[in-house]
Amino acid sequence: MSPATGELSSLIRKRVLSALPEGHGHPELQRYVQLMRDYPERAGKTLRGKMVVMAARAHQGDEEAALATAAGVELFQNWVLVHDDIEDDSERRRGRPALHRMVGTPIAINVGDALHVAMWRVLLALPSTTPGGLDREAVLHEFLWMIDRTAEGQHLDLSWVAAGRFDITEEDYLTMVTLKTAYYTVVCPLRLGAACASAPPSPSFESAGIELGAAFQIRDDVLNLTRGVSYGKEFAGDLYEGKRTLILAHLLAHAGSDERGELEEVLAKPREAKQPHEIERVLAAIERHGSLRYAQDIAERRARAGLEHLDEALDRLPGRAAARELESLLRSLAQRSV
Amino acid sequence: MSPATGELSSLIRKRVLSALPEGHGHPELQRYVQLMRDYPERAGKTLRGKMVVMAARAHQGDEEAALATAAGVELFQNWVLVHDDIEDDSERRRGRPALHRMVGTPIAINVGDALHVAMWRVLLALPSTTPGGLDREAVLHEFLWMIDRTAEGQHLDLSWVAAGRFDITEEDYLTMVTLKTAYYTVVCPLRLGAACASAPPSPSFESAGIELGAAFQIRDDVLNLTRGVSYGKEFAGDLYEGKRTLILAHLLAHAGSDERGELEEVLAKPREAKQPHEIERVLAAIERHGSLRYAQDIAERRARAGLEHLDEALDRLPGRAAARELESLLRSLAQRSV
Repeated sequence: MSPATGELSSLIRKRVLSALPEGHGHPELQRYVQLMRDYPERAGKTLRGKMVVMAARAHQGDEEAALATAAGVELFQNWVLVHDDIEDDSERRRGRPALHRMVGTPIAINVGDALHVAMWRVLLALPSTTPGGLDREAVLHEFLWMIDRTAEGQHLDLSWVAAGRFDITEEDYLTMVTLKTAYYTVVCPLRLGAACASAPPSPSFESAGIELGAAFQIRDDVLNLTRGVSYGKEFAGDLYEGKRTLILAHLLAHAGSDERGELEEVLAKPREAKQPHEIERVLAAIERHGSLRYAQDIAERRARAGLEHLDEALDRLPGRAAARELESLLRSLAQRSV
Repeated sequence: MSPATGELSSLIRKRVLSALPEGHGHPELQRYVQLMRDYPERAGKTLRGKMVVMAARAHQGDEEAALATAAGVELFQNWVLVHDDIEDDSERRRGRPALHRMVGTPIAINVGDALHVAMWRVLLALPSTTPGGLDREAVLHEFLWMIDRTAEGQHLDLSWVAAGRFDITEEDYLTMVTLKTAYYTVVCPLRLGAACASAPPSPSFESAGIELGAAFQIRDDVLNLTRGVSYGKEFAGDLYEGKRTLILAHLLAHAGSDERGELEEVLAKPREAKQPHEIERVLAAIERHGSLRYAQDIAERRARAGLEHLDEALDRLPGRAAARELESLLRSLAQRSV
């Protein structure tokens, strides 16, 4: 991470925190304010926020508006994580217990809603246009689009778990991660950068962003099942949560029917009923069938395709240095080396 | 209900439903779309939406913008109810099972989020101003204010239940219902009506709206413990959910210390552990101490104070007929005769 990029991260983080209330005279509401600040104060990578600012710079857009928009994207990420962690009953987030495990589901849902409205407050404070070139309506509509897609993807993911479906194909999985991850992680941040310059976004932002976003999510799934990687989440948490991943789709498509039956029996149990030795059996099967390697290869192929596809669009942008920085961020994001 | 008012209700309901997607080519997302429409399709009273339109008419504001804003308020009500029903683990809503009891908590949280963004989509589709006098920025900022207050009130309510606190005073309760109910039920709809005419809202809207909103919520609490009333929720559900109400505050302040101990023991149990005969004991104590009557009296006193306070402000509005209709709506709302 270059010093300039680290600085940008801390600038965005400051914006996020300054968009949230700092304190309250009422004791219970003081606690509420602290809970709103809890996830934002945990050190996230502000990847998506940085992407907005770099994309805005590459379009020679309004820097001030880009920082506010970046804060909006990070607030989006925070409220979505609070709700996702409940929906998946995740144990940990950014190296600490998930919010609902600290305060219970009811209070955590409400804190997520409060962060959601804090996001809109930041966006609605943008002027409708600026000499630097902001198009506020375009920013606001990109957020509507982004939240819709993410919620659709989340619904697919949750409904497969709820229905106990294991017949998820690679294509199903890719539809789901495109909606759930790729839009808010890559496509929308790139397009938001363009909106800060009132520039029409390159159509490649969508097609390439989908490839890169899928690569990012697949790498995330791989990391979750890779021992000894510290990335703030529980090792093999995806198996405990019963998440449908590309790894699992590959495994179940390649297991013999007896083995498949045994694996599904374990995976279908509620998380509390899953024993560590059962999860070890699933991990061993994943190893045996090369499913982790398979997923990793797909991620690499998609990342390459996305970057190639994007190269030309980035080459055309007026802010040369920022475009190169953006490309390097996208490269490391797709490889999860950030 | 006058025919004109019934018509207004159905106009608003149509607006709400037309703001939601109707279908989707993907089978799971078709289900998702249906779930988004589920609460809005259950016949609600659209009280708050009607209040917006009547207040806009009383200010001689933009009718078209008022209808869209009314739909926004109703969408707010719907997403809040989906999340509230999870937070309180309510059984029923508008005469049918609560959404999370039909589809599980994870999917219901996500559907609530999808309705939340549908609300913003309706509001952001408003033009910034209209010949009819709309001030869109004022509408948007009123929504930010409304959601913030409601979430604060909800936090108070939930944190008392989570902490097992029974030492809630009448003042605590009134702070909570002002935040949780009065703003979004009365104060904000009145001010939104003014914003549809770019008129500065009367300061009485806030002070009187708080009285009326509290009266509304107290009447709601009373109805919940009144046998044989059909209003879409479970009889005595508030006792099963352990909600802190004015009725309970009065009861616990007037019970002897032994009786208080017994009552708190029942009320503190998780809802599944509460036996019907135990709830009957609480109801008998409420009867004995006149707590329902006490709450009803407070509600009536607050409703009268609010209406008197508002009279003068309504008298000054240019749309005479609409102002009278609005007053009559507020009167029946405070008495829960609508």
